[in-house]
Amino acid sequence: MRLLSNQLNDHINQSVFIEGWLHKKRLLGGLTFINLRDRKGIVQAVIKDKEQVDKLKGLQIGTVLSLRGLVVKEQRAPGGIELHDVNLEIIVPVVYEPPIEIDKPLSHKPDNLDTLFEHRAIGLRNITEAKVFLIRSELLRLIRQFLYEQDFIEIQTPKIVGNAAEGGAEVFRFDYFGKPASLAQSPQLYKQVMIGVFERVFEIGPAFRAEPSATTRHVSEVTMLDIEMAFIENHDQVLQMIETMLFQVLTKLWQEHEQLLNDLKAPPLILKPDLPRYSIQQIHKLYQEANQIDMSQEIDLTPEEERFICEYAKEHDQSEAVFATDLPKPKMKFYHMAKDNDYALSADLLFRGLELATVPQREHHYDVLIEQMKNAGIDPQDQSFKFYLEAFKHGLPPHGGCGFGIDRLVEKTLGLANIKEAILFPRDINRLAP
Amino acid sequence: MRLLSNQLNDHINQSVFIEGWLHKKRLLGGLTFINLRDRKGIVQAVIKDKEQVDKLKGLQIGTVLSLRGLVVKEQRAPGGIELHDVNLEIIVPVVYEPPIEIDKPLSHKPDNLDTLFEHRAIGLRNITEAKVFLIRSELLRLIRQFLYEQDFIEIQTPKIVGNAAEGGAEVFRFDYFGKPASLAQSPQLYKQVMIGVFERVFEIGPAFRAEPSATTRHVSEVTMLDIEMAFIENHDQVLQMIETMLFQVLTKLWQEHEQLLNDLKAPPLILKPDLPRYSIQQIHKLYQEANQIDMSQEIDLTPEEERFICEYAKEHDQSEAVFATDLPKPKMKFYHMAKDNDYALSADLLFRGLELATVPQREHHYDVLIEQMKNAGIDPQDQSFKFYLEAFKHGLPPHGGCGFGIDRLVEKTLGLANIKEAILFPRDINRLAP
Repeated sequence: MRLLSNQLNDHINQSVFIEGWLHKKRLLGGLTFINLRDRKGIVQAVIKDKEQVDKLKGLQIGTVLSLRGLVVKEQRAPGGIELHDVNLEIIVPVVYEPPIEIDKPLSHKPDNLDTLFEHRAIGLRNITEAKVFLIRSELLRLIRQFLYEQDFIEIQTPKIVGNAAEGGAEVFRFDYFGKPASLAQSPQLYKQVMIGVFERVFEIGPAFRAEPSATTRHVSEVTMLDIEMAFIENHDQVLQMIETMLFQVLTKLWQEHEQLLNDLKAPPLILKPDLPRYSIQQIHKLYQEANQIDMSQEIDLTPEEERFICEYAKEHDQSEAVFATDLPKPKMKFYHMAKDNDYALSADLLFRGLELATVPQREHHYDVLIEQMKNAGIDPQDQSFKFYLEAFKHGLPPHGGCGFGIDRLVEKTLGLANIKEAILFPRDINRLAP
Repeated sequence: MRLLSNQLNDHINQSVFIEGWLHKKRLLGGLTFINLRDRKGIVQAVIKDKEQVDKLKGLQIGTVLSLRGLVVKEQRAPGGIELHDVNLEIIVPVVYEPPIEIDKPLSHKPDNLDTLFEHRAIGLRNITEAKVFLIRSELLRLIRQFLYEQDFIEIQTPKIVGNAAEGGAEVFRFDYFGKPASLAQSPQLYKQVMIGVFERVFEIGPAFRAEPSATTRHVSEVTMLDIEMAFIENHDQVLQMIETMLFQVLTKLWQEHEQLLNDLKAPPLILKPDLPRYSIQQIHKLYQEANQIDMSQEIDLTPEEERFICEYAKEHDQSEAVFATDLPKPKMKFYHMAKDNDYALSADLLFRGLELATVPQREHHYDVLIEQMKNAGIDPQDQSFKFYLEAFKHGLPPHGGCGFGIDRLVEKTLGLANIKEAILFPRDINRLAP
């Protein structure tokens, strides 16, 4: 039976059978050393027998093979063990040289990113690179676990929608059997009406934005975690749910995967279960005091301020995440609830300098919502909003939620330089393949 | 603190606070009876006090309210309890009559489906209707749990793709910053190359098909579970993984949610951990013997045969699911592995008369794959296939997997008549909203 590389330490001095990819091959003192890669890591094998060595003649990295051999302790080898007396069998011979070297650290410098994404499925065979996506899968597992425990149910809402519900130009449009359709920018309207049934819902799925910018922050397809919860007493209950989720998920991630995170040089986590809350006005002032730059004309936070307040909170509150509260009304969406004449009940969750989520309470009064739509220049008679308004007309309780960027969470958890490195096959204005 | 309807049985003779929606209101012998709905069910409350009754004057079903009252045993009430000495508070008044009656069973007859989907977010407030999506959420949770235990990792692949990878006319096309793009029909190519990194991957996400048919089987946006596993010894290992998943997931679903399933009148489960396997040729013969209809000209199974073999296996093998093996070569896709000159190593998983998944072994030899592409009329030089072929060129081990229809699984698990009833907001040729 096949064993995996991480199981061999329990089989010292035993004969084992392993399968994987040829990851490295070198000659040293008349011996052939090979590294075999499987999904759990690397095993080093020493081959003396000429007949065995000859089987590898002309074969390249990537060759799929099996090894039978004796597990021997060897401190200098990866994992502290080595395979001796090897009997080797080729499963899939590879005769082509790899397009990139995968047993050395890959450059993530901006000028190499295109090469990285061009050969993504090969580059990820580098065992460190692959760990980004092990962490990503685990983050999603832990998020779902938390939300199930909190009695949320998972829903799937359509990605093909009629009108672009939230408006805006950054929408991909296409023909749907003769009708104009577009790709959903978010499940906003759908998840809100579903709290009228399930009270607590979430969705993890793709969202599409025709972002015409080429930066380290912009991609046209993202993975969003959408959360919505009803029967809240106030906005702060929503913030509490989100900060608890962030804290529990990241804390468990570090407890369960410290080695993986260290291998990826992830910055150590400095976080509290209850995040500091600063109003955007307070942040403008703190930034001005620290940098002697007048921010009084800014409505929302600038990217520099987002970085600043996270550094500030790290120093003063021992937290790398912070809520920036009291969004000024000019930035408020029609479905947000107003706090007063000047501010919305909406807060941005910032983590290590980047906005992960916007976390508002929603306006749940039918009449007020209609007014806010009109004020935002949206026609409440528009057929795209019929099902949405109908749910409010027939009673939706106080509720709130967030759209939470999963790619950004992966990026910031691991300290990556570019959101695209957190995505298997990123899409941007210049990249539609692979 | 708010209690939920299913917690009240633990609070007999205690004063409690609950919140929810007015679900039903009636006068009986001078008393007002109301039903309050929350996410866990229905609570009946008896209101005597005129001042309290007056608060409901002019208010309709859907009104959001809170109740304080004494929990009293009452066998005739839902859940065996009733609320007395009620103090009622209106949270969100509703003055509009509901578009459909939600406290009575909703008709799912074909001529009522349009009304059902038109007012979907209201109709699901019927507590039986909502249970379909509780089951759906639980099915997804149990599937993920099984796959994590089997050491699969979850991936997200792009839904915006360049060329339609698998070809065919049924593709939604659109403009992507001046380049032609399309919506992914499946993660096929992406998941296959990722087994070169993680060996075992899965994805649960939307897939898009421009199906120009209006039937009970066709929708243009489905939720697919895509699974791919490497280092298999043979095709049967893939079938074993899928049949084990189906058995464990559905068995656990019945163990954990028997009441919900009975409320939905789900047909009792007749299933085995190892499914019967019949070749398509065998099924043609069995069908012919039973029905005296000559099927020898058919390549694949007809829908009638799919229903027949499931009934047949239910009777002869005590299993409502079956693998139809040995797909004839004319139906084989270029990425399937051939079994011999006549058949592909591909099997259909049929459950209660419907195909849930196609489960092939993949061709993993670079040269053979190129030949099979050419035979299928696909140009291996096409840039869309560059990353795909590159992964094979540099070594992919024997592997197989499936695309598994989640909507179909929900439909057949619950015995629904139409795939659209298993989808929150279905999309078909005539329906783009809500």
